[in-house]
Amino acid sequence: MTLAQENCVPCTSATAKLSAEEIAALLPTLNGWVVDGINLSKRLKFANFVEALAYVNTLGELAEAANHHPDILFGWGYVTVNLTTHDAGGITRNDFVMAAKIDGIK
Amino acid sequence: MTLAQENCVPCTSATAKLSAEEIAALLPTLNGWVVDGINLSKRLKFANFVEALAYVNTLGELAEAANHHPDILFGWGYVTVNLTTHDAGGITRNDFVMAAKIDGIK
Repeated sequence: MTLAQENCVPCTSATAKLSAEEIAALLPTLNGWVVDGINLSKRLKFANFVEALAYVNTLGELAEAANHHPDILFGWGYVTVNLTTHDAGGITRNDFVMAAKIDGIK
Repeated sequence: MTLAQENCVPCTSATAKLSAEEIAALLPTLNGWVVDGINLSKRLKFANFVEALAYVNTLGELAEAANHHPDILFGWGYVTVNLTTHDAGGITRNDFVMAAKIDGIK
């Protein structure tokens, strides 16, 4: 089963923050993501504001369906997606699952 | 004529960055905006992700209509709007006009 086929599990104290080694092992399975502090982060370029906003809406539907919500920064020609698990204080497997699902839409 | 009734003018070298005094004079005419570095910034709270996303779409329509595009950061329960005029290297009257229009929608 790939990451994208997994489901985000409800965040509890059992949803553990991944170690640097675990993150380093999973990162190459994603497309274009980097670790930025406590976030798994991806920046995408778009032709204009309207296309960026359209992508934000696609992303929003996916996030709502998975009940795992990124922080999204966007404007004219770009979208930056940040994933972290606030309850865990860092990046969890849920964030990688969500990132893999996001890779599936663009 | 109020700020909200003005139109954003095309950004050229003639669209001058406002002075600190000009900004201080205009800021009280807005609702909840602060100066954050080179940005005019407002943070709004929402009940959940879906409501934040709905507001982002309303904001997006307004920005596209005015052809003045904020940088928007949002996630579960919040939206932060940042306005600046990159060509001017700071805050211009256009940013205040756009901020006043945004105040009109929430």
